[in-house]
Amino acid sequence: MTQITPPSTDARNAAQRRLASLVTPPGALGRLGELGVWVAACQGQVPPVPLTHVRLVIFAGDHGVADHGVSAFPPAITGAMVRGFLASQAGVNALAQTHDVAVRVLDLGVDEDFGDLDQTTRAALTSYKIRRSSGALHLTDALTRRETERALEAGATVAAEEIAAGAQLLISGDMGIGNTTPAAALVAAALGLTGRDVVGRGTGIDDDALAHKAAVIDAGLARAGDRVHDPIETLTALSSADLAATTGYLLAAARHGVPVLLDGLMSVACALTAARIDPGVTAWFAAGHRSTEPAHSLALQALGLDPLLDLGMRLGEGSGAVAAVPVVRGAVALLRDVALLEDL
Amino acid sequence: MTQITPPSTDARNAAQRRLASLVTPPGALGRLGELGVWVAACQGQVPPVPLTHVRLVIFAGDHGVADHGVSAFPPAITGAMVRGFLASQAGVNALAQTHDVAVRVLDLGVDEDFGDLDQTTRAALTSYKIRRSSGALHLTDALTRRETERALEAGATVAAEEIAAGAQLLISGDMGIGNTTPAAALVAAALGLTGRDVVGRGTGIDDDALAHKAAVIDAGLARAGDRVHDPIETLTALSSADLAATTGYLLAAARHGVPVLLDGLMSVACALTAARIDPGVTAWFAAGHRSTEPAHSLALQALGLDPLLDLGMRLGEGSGAVAAVPVVRGAVALLRDVALLEDL
Repeated sequence: MTQITPPSTDARNAAQRRLASLVTPPGALGRLGELGVWVAACQGQVPPVPLTHVRLVIFAGDHGVADHGVSAFPPAITGAMVRGFLASQAGVNALAQTHDVAVRVLDLGVDEDFGDLDQTTRAALTSYKIRRSSGALHLTDALTRRETERALEAGATVAAEEIAAGAQLLISGDMGIGNTTPAAALVAAALGLTGRDVVGRGTGIDDDALAHKAAVIDAGLARAGDRVHDPIETLTALSSADLAATTGYLLAAARHGVPVLLDGLMSVACALTAARIDPGVTAWFAAGHRSTEPAHSLALQALGLDPLLDLGMRLGEGSGAVAAVPVVRGAVALLRDVALLEDL
Repeated sequence: MTQITPPSTDARNAAQRRLASLVTPPGALGRLGELGVWVAACQGQVPPVPLTHVRLVIFAGDHGVADHGVSAFPPAITGAMVRGFLASQAGVNALAQTHDVAVRVLDLGVDEDFGDLDQTTRAALTSYKIRRSSGALHLTDALTRRETERALEAGATVAAEEIAAGAQLLISGDMGIGNTTPAAALVAAALGLTGRDVVGRGTGIDDDALAHKAAVIDAGLARAGDRVHDPIETLTALSSADLAATTGYLLAAARHGVPVLLDGLMSVACALTAARIDPGVTAWFAAGHRSTEPAHSLALQALGLDPLLDLGMRLGEGSGAVAAVPVVRGAVALLRDVALLEDL
């Protein structure tokens, strides 16, 4: 595998100098100033070029735990929502269209075959399918080791495809009923926490289901045992094809030198897992928004990232990151287009 | 004067029903859900139409207190920055271009005559000029009562012009060295606070200047005495032509039934003053961002408004509200474009 090269220190320093030379009072741009400097460092050029090609990949998959009372919705919704993305009917589609973000949805492990779709659409959707659903993580491994490796590779290939298509900024989205349980388990495994520390209400479970969800995560952590100290083994024991692929996608973005705007819990749990595989990945990440899921904030804190938006969103799909794309574009515009003191 | 009619209750209720019928889990859109409902109520239609015409007016003026050690910059910067806006060189221009917001700059009280500008530009810029600079508020009234009334009328006329030009959402911006002092004084007068409660560092003053700024505000409040209980008299004693005009602009937007996205301290201090003149105005306001100025948060709290962005910005110019425009557009898109459960 390629090493991760950090964003350019020279470009960062030059961008800092440019920021200090703008006709704005020192520090007055707040986080927009820092964000523009980060983009410039990632691009290796000052001023940074506008982000005209921002691309979201939604990794869809089902989860064995969804049959065990951890979600407010039945697993069949996963496939229905995949059809919704394809038809541009979902929340993230509305935001992506408004904010000029390209959307691609991929079935990594949905528990159906999409036989009703036309052949071209189905082939594109399932081109990286690893399996149907995953093992229920409190009872058995979610994936085989080989499936984990194939999913990581699939994610890396998808990132390379998106970059070849011109992506200057990548986003990962998620769809999968039950997916906050494995994602929270990944965060607990990474940070040495318990189910209770990391568990949240997902799409809206009640108190009893919340306690059950914590117990499911604890059972999964106990079952995985010492394997939680190895990030790849953690993915095999506790994640899913879609989450392992997301992890591979995030790693590959950094290896290709393309920045990533992280989304909600699934995106950030995979980012944290990616950082266990290669800590150099984190320098390529910014956090789009703060989700209401507790594990999301714990993972962001561990990554040292502070989200751009805090709007109480918990939709998933990549929606929180897509909502934050204009903030990043604004930061780039400030560093590019504001006059310099020396030019007045 | 026209009465302020509240946003449509029928449209709000219908928008709430539509929000609950989208193919998104209940509450998953967080504040974007509420924001879309607010726009629908303001427009009186469900779904709301996209916000293709968002318009910012920057009210520029100088302030007598700027000669008394309350700012990190000299007063001559006000006119220089006005020229910067006209040449699209300032921070807010970069954001406005990226986010498709129209920018208009008006000289209400800049302490120069712009004789170097071509006649057409100068005529447009100064068409509502009330006076040059303002009285130093700790020593004398900032305006005469007649100037206050003319400035309020000017702001109202400007709002009407912007609405006639198609504005669906209005923003007020500010430019004026020293303007955080009168703005903080307006907040103190409205809320019965002291200089120390409301004072902030503006564009970057040190501890000594901060204490002096608080003392200037306290002297102004003492000088104004019981007149602070009357919002128009407060404007006369403690504000400026640009701030009084901004207040008139915000009131007129609400009277015309056009929503406003508030910006930083100057915008919010005028919004609070407008709410003292007519409390019905507040229902037409949303808060774009949280400024680092203490008086900004105090005024927002008094208005019951929670800002959309918190990015540590303190640039002024309308920049924080312009940065938040895509959030509002995203909220409208969600309520318009996401499929309904019944349509699946």
